[in-house]
This record gives sequence, structure tokens and C-alpha cells, in this order.
Amino acid sequence: MKQLSKTKSAYIAGFLDGDGSIYIRLKPNHSYHFGYQIAPNIVFYQSQRNLKYLEQIKTMIGGGYLRKRNDGIVEYVLGDVATMSSLLKQILPYLIFKKKQARLFLKILNQKPKVRTQADFIILAKMIDDLEKLNYSKKRFINSKVVKDSFTRL
Amino acid sequence: MKQLSKTKSAYIAGFLDGDGSIYIRLKPNHSYHFGYQIAPNIVFYQSQRNLKYLEQIKTMIGGGYLRKRNDGIVEYVLGDVATMSSLLKQILPYLIFKKKQARLFLKILNQKPKVRTQADFIILAKMIDDLEKLNYSKKRFINSKVVKDSFTRL
Repeated sequence: MKQLSKTKSAYIAGFLDGDGSIYIRLKPNHSYHFGYQIAPNIVFYQSQRNLKYLEQIKTMIGGGYLRKRNDGIVEYVLGDVATMSSLLKQILPYLIFKKKQARLFLKILNQKPKVRTQADFIILAKMIDDLEKLNYSKKRFINSKVVKDSFTRL
Repeated sequence: MKQLSKTKSAYIAGFLDGDGSIYIRLKPNHSYHFGYQIAPNIVFYQSQRNLKYLEQIKTMIGGGYLRKRNDGIVEYVLGDVATMSSLLKQILPYLIFKKKQARLFLKILNQKPKVRTQADFIILAKMIDDLEKLNYSKKRFINSKVVKDSFTRL
């Protein structure tokens, strides 16, 4: 992604703090080595009438895509690891509300390629639990316990 | 209010774009010369669990107050004209979503002390109509037409 100016980084930090989300989901998927896909996302939400402004933010960041929901909300979704890492590193100094989440998210992205064993994967899943606790996430079903149990059953 | 650094201004611009509101209400009040109080506000909204971060934004800006609602939302409310003018002028270069609203809001605040006649007041009320159109406001009952009609009845 693009190198942002300091004020653009600070703007996006404020926008993400006010209106965005940093999360990681564990999705059961047998084509992955440990049976779970690790799906990290950064998402910004806005009313569809603000679509053109969200396009501007997308151009500023230079990655991701817009997704219209049925409830009148447009999501601007980032899912590419390189883009998300670069963005978070640039905006980290300016984040206030989501600084902890951003730090942990980066740590998880950094740890992910180093996972070799089931034990490593469980440690990673626990870090994702911690991230979702910081997010006060309630809609989460696949956590480190589910992962651990699925390993034990094999 | 305080003079903000460029990155703090940009952060608050992003936060306001994502999560805030710039509006003016006309409140019927007979103690005012034309029978209406002009009540401008800038408001930021957050979940109560983020109260401490909203306190930080308040300290950064150096004005306004926090108000807990019954639905778990905390509002950080600015109502002082000097503070709001100073803040908007500083963050204006960085605003994306709410740039038009901010410009019109400043224009209205600037025009307000110059109002001498009922005709002047109606022009001001029409500018407030325009602001609320930009805000897609639906909960608005007192508009320039109501003001005009009340003047005609006298």
C-alpha cells in the first residue's frame, strides 16, 4: 500500500477509532494445514449515502474493496496482510481507542507464518481470543478451546 | 480551546467523520429576541466502555463535557461557540465526510451575531435548514418555515 503522510495516517487512525473494526476470525476449513483458516480484517463502516467518501479513503489507502450490505451500510474491507500491516504500522502512533488491538493484531500477523505445530497454533488461537476480548466480540464461536478440542479428537 | 498539532487535528477530523455530528437546533424560547434559541453542537458518540478514551479526546480538545445516556452510549458534547469555531477551523483541512457541514456551520456561527431583523433571522434559519439537509436529519420539527410562520402570526 501507499506511504501515507503523517496527517493522513492520523486521520485514518481517528476514523478507525470512531467507526472501524480490527478483528481476526478462525474459520473451519479442511484445505488448511491445521483445519482452520485465519482470516484477519480491518473494516470501516458507513451509510451508503457516504459511499463516495469511503471511496476517497480507499484511494488514500490504496487497497481493499467496498461491500454493500442489505441494511444500507457500506463496508470498506481490508483483508490483505501486507496492506493491513503497513497501514497499522503507519497509524499506530496516532491510535487512541484501538492501539492495543492494533499492536496485538500485528503481533498475530507476525506470528502466523512461524506456526509449525498444533501447540503453536493453539498459542496463536489464544492470542486471537485476547484480541476478540479487547473487541468485546459476542458473535464468536470458534475460539482457542474449540481449536484445541478439535486437535484432541484427531 | 487549545491549539492542536496537525496530526491531532487530523485525528479529530477522522474521528468526527467516522463517529461524530455537527448540528444546530432552533429551540422555541421566549427569553430570546426572536423567540428562538439557536443551539449549535458538535457531538462525538461512543460506547460507555470507551469512556476513558473519550476523556482523552476531551483533554486533547480542552472543552465540552461528557454525558452518559441510558442506552449505554456516552456523548462528548461541545456547545461553546468559541471552542467549536476554533476546533472546526483547525480540523477543516483534514475533514472529508463533514467538510461541507463544517464550512456551513462556521458560516452560521459567524452570521448569527449580525442578525438584526426578522428577515435576517429567517435567512439564518434557512442556512440551518441547509445544514440539517446535509446531515440527513429526520428528527427536525423547527425549521425556517416554522420560524417564518411564527413571525407572520405576531
